[in-house]
Amino acid sequence: MPHIPLPEGEPGIVSLMVAFRESEKPLNALGQAVMCGPSSLTRAERELIATYVSHGNQCRFCTNSHAAVARRLLGPRADIVSQVLSDPESAPISDKMKALLVIADKVRRDGRLVTPEDVARARAAGADDKAIHDTVLIAAMFCMFNRYVDGLATWTPEDPSVYEAIGERIATKGYGSRFREGPTPPMAE
Amino acid sequence: MPHIPLPEGEPGIVSLMVAFRESEKPLNALGQAVMCGPSSLTRAERELIATYVSHGNQCRFCTNSHAAVARRLLGPRADIVSQVLSDPESAPISDKMKALLVIADKVRRDGRLVTPEDVARARAAGADDKAIHDTVLIAAMFCMFNRYVDGLATWTPEDPSVYEAIGERIATKGYGSRFREGPTPPMAE
Repeated sequence: MPHIPLPEGEPGIVSLMVAFRESEKPLNALGQAVMCGPSSLTRAERELIATYVSHGNQCRFCTNSHAAVARRLLGPRADIVSQVLSDPESAPISDKMKALLVIADKVRRDGRLVTPEDVARARAAGADDKAIHDTVLIAAMFCMFNRYVDGLATWTPEDPSVYEAIGERIATKGYGSRFREGPTPPMAE
Repeated sequence: MPHIPLPEGEPGIVSLMVAFRESEKPLNALGQAVMCGPSSLTRAERELIATYVSHGNQCRFCTNSHAAVARRLLGPRADIVSQVLSDPESAPISDKMKALLVIADKVRRDGRLVTPEDVARARAAGADDKAIHDTVLIAAMFCMFNRYVDGLATWTPEDPSVYEAIGERIATKGYGSRFREGPTPPMAE
């Protein structure tokens, strides 16, 4: 049961966004800019980072939601998501992504853990400055979302179809699409 | 030395905001909404929570910056800031603030640590739903800011006058005031 009254039937961060519109707008604008805006990382790569960080923080609502977005964006390669969550080093992803997930996990635990060697490994595998920046910001942002969702004990549905619907909506219409009419973000990975 | 090239002479999150304008705008809009928008908490109370969380995360740039904002807003009661950082339970703050700082520190560590008893204590001391919501969101948001600043190893100046200038600017002109012309947020605590 949530720590404060929230709209019934609305899950996770959606319940908070429905109830608190002053923060909903910039939270969704931030999600849209970071997860769907210009980047050298594909949208699927960014959603994988978000899912991995949320899983590390054991936030079930965010993990399930962003795993569904990532699967939708990955299409036939959707199995990558569960492989990344169980063991990123053996998952069929690029060396660049493996190096970026190491950085993301350190940011999740404490930003000060990221070393020049971690960054050098990512660069050697092809990550540019924007990829390194975006990885750190995605990890940091999901440390916020995870805490917002769990710190207020919002509802985490068990029904997988809830997350499939969220995944479909964010993949095709972007962040905040429930609250606005707006342009469809590019689907390209 | 920062992990990626950043504008020289710009400290902490400012360097990231100058370099990455797509995320700067929603990050500042979020800061403005949460820290200066409508709330049952005063701006000084919100800055105290932000400072306390940043201190817990050992993010020196954010701690120094928001301590300066809080001191500026508190005026003659500015000493409260260092008292809260060394021991909130004995600091000359309300029981409501003491209870909210307990919640903020739990959110900082892991949102799932917040118990119904923590929330009941805050309510009994006068916190309403919005105060509880805002405390959780402030703590979560600074877990993001702290990680963004430290995960990219941005510059943390030693000169206290840098933080006094940041404190003065945010206290009097709000978040993002370096990047926009806009209304002055209410100073009232």
